[in-house]
Amino acid sequence: MQITKPTLLIDEQKVRQNIQTFVSKTNQSNIRFRPHFKTHQSHTIGNWFKESGVSAITVSSVDMANYFFNAGWRDITIAFPANIRQIDEINQLADQCNLGLLVESLDSISILAEEATSPLSVWVEIDQGYNRTGVQNEDELIQLVLSLENEALLNFTGLLTHAGHAYSAQSVHELKGIHQASIRDLKTKQDVLKTQGFKDCQLSIGDTPTCSVSDDFSGIDEIRPGSFVFYDLEQVSLGACSELNLAMGVACPVVAKYPKRSQIIIYGGAVHLSKEYQRTSSGKRSFGKVAIYSDHKWSNPLKSTYVSSISQEHGIIQTNTSILEQVRIGDILLILPVHACLTANLFNQYTTLTNVKFSKMQSFSP
Amino acid sequence: MQITKPTLLIDEQKVRQNIQTFVSKTNQSNIRFRPHFKTHQSHTIGNWFKESGVSAITVSSVDMANYFFNAGWRDITIAFPANIRQIDEINQLADQCNLGLLVESLDSISILAEEATSPLSVWVEIDQGYNRTGVQNEDELIQLVLSLENEALLNFTGLLTHAGHAYSAQSVHELKGIHQASIRDLKTKQDVLKTQGFKDCQLSIGDTPTCSVSDDFSGIDEIRPGSFVFYDLEQVSLGACSELNLAMGVACPVVAKYPKRSQIIIYGGAVHLSKEYQRTSSGKRSFGKVAIYSDHKWSNPLKSTYVSSISQEHGIIQTNTSILEQVRIGDILLILPVHACLTANLFNQYTTLTNVKFSKMQSFSP
Repeated sequence: MQITKPTLLIDEQKVRQNIQTFVSKTNQSNIRFRPHFKTHQSHTIGNWFKESGVSAITVSSVDMANYFFNAGWRDITIAFPANIRQIDEINQLADQCNLGLLVESLDSISILAEEATSPLSVWVEIDQGYNRTGVQNEDELIQLVLSLENEALLNFTGLLTHAGHAYSAQSVHELKGIHQASIRDLKTKQDVLKTQGFKDCQLSIGDTPTCSVSDDFSGIDEIRPGSFVFYDLEQVSLGACSELNLAMGVACPVVAKYPKRSQIIIYGGAVHLSKEYQRTSSGKRSFGKVAIYSDHKWSNPLKSTYVSSISQEHGIIQTNTSILEQVRIGDILLILPVHACLTANLFNQYTTLTNVKFSKMQSFSP
Repeated sequence: MQITKPTLLIDEQKVRQNIQTFVSKTNQSNIRFRPHFKTHQSHTIGNWFKESGVSAITVSSVDMANYFFNAGWRDITIAFPANIRQIDEINQLADQCNLGLLVESLDSISILAEEATSPLSVWVEIDQGYNRTGVQNEDELIQLVLSLENEALLNFTGLLTHAGHAYSAQSVHELKGIHQASIRDLKTKQDVLKTQGFKDCQLSIGDTPTCSVSDDFSGIDEIRPGSFVFYDLEQVSLGACSELNLAMGVACPVVAKYPKRSQIIIYGGAVHLSKEYQRTSSGKRSFGKVAIYSDHKWSNPLKSTYVSSISQEHGIIQTNTSILEQVRIGDILLILPVHACLTANLFNQYTTLTNVKFSKMQSFSP
């Protein structure tokens, strides 16, 4: 294939393998797999999930729910506080499929109750310490569930949480601990609700790191990880996967070389990779690792080589003499991103290693 | 206007005012104004420049050059190291307009020389300490210009620099110093080339901060700033503009409130704002300031209020009790971004305060 500019590449075999690992894991635990599709945002990759038997999905916006509804998905949870400004689209969707929404306050419930015209599956979001959105307090939780009881169209479905604080974990051991604590907390809250008479309360958890390192999901009804489909350097650092699982990268042309500074300049910057970074072992910012791309495959990440700085379209790769000698202007390097979701979001198209191209949702269409 | 989701808003009057300030400044100095269009990436905003008499532009990619060529621009510099992989498009463009390219090594010159089929305006990029791309050494510079002399289609046009290190300046005084040093350095190099017999050597500088605070451009042929069209919080911090010049923001629906934490949650995250941040006076990360949006205008930025954290679609606003009481779920807040170029890049459309919508270049089309 002729790569002329920054190109979002995926290794289809690895993507399918990553999907299959989670399909097997959830089948073994006999729980629902409701993968988060915000990572890939693509009908085609969605179909790969469908071929593996997946029928329920998670998305992060009403637009994304519409995009996947149009591809035939009929069981969709929007894992984001209900955006009341899009109530018309929400009602239209809820009229035609099982649409799940999140609530986390009496205010959002009363606004939804007023505006909903179709039945909605309503999850109460639980905040387990990530401090983003969700209910922390048990009394408040009971109040919310009680208030839902009075609303004919708002069907209380269960408790949902995203253990975003897992991304600060320092070890796999800590990740496993967060996972167990998360399940324990949800079960306790489920028990509290049972004593209040709410027998039907599903439990939904979902983040790639804890779900990747854990196999015990007893008591849980569904999981909603997303990033595992491609994995990324952040997940490698957390111990959620190995570099062999990385299934996506950005192919970038080399445009200049600075041997004195041991640097290579690529056409590939913040508008292709995003400004997400991680720290190297010596504390430097890294916007990605670097692999050699040739013959329809990419190499293992190059040692002591990383994207040390990016501006809008430029990327600066810090490397060593032997790599500098090997790489020429016009060559293609593959950048393994820190955060796959944000990188994929910047492109409108995927290209596989066998040169099949397919579109994704527009990065942010009007 | 009915805003239902994150929407890229511009204040047309302020944009036109920002353009006019630079048109007047360059007219007074009798230098060419070659604005960088990577910030707005829009035919419509390009036309506002055209109406002010601008006829030469800067872009950062071959795709962007094509996009603006299609809108009638015929004098375009691609201020990025020539990407030889796109030589076919480069040749097509150069055949139909005055196309400027950057070189910074003998390697890139020899590859270009081999592949070019139409005359190109070739600028040698000078690195004045930003350490990204460009030539630092005078002997090397002479070598490059000499080698261009042998190439019939590669017309040496002049020296071009981007004082990216200006973005680290701590004061307007320092910015002015960088500006003067930059011009001095280019003139010295121009003199060196003259003694070598190269009489025709234009000088091109371009960055928003130094060009905003300076009025003396004597000896310079053109300037290429870009961000000034919208300005942003980074430019305010540098002293390049005031908050009154900020002409762009992202309108975001409020989806949740957490009074105990003094936080408001908006639908607006990394895929709408980018992950560019700056530090507040107390050292906290800020992904943007916040204004009240109503009646087709936005307020001054709210005191002690900023976007303290973002994930893919969520934004967390840290604020105070009085703002929390004032703002309700479903309201629209306007986020003033840290880095306007990266924020605008994430959208495919602009909306003016008078509700006129127009498209921009696709964020990264295949």
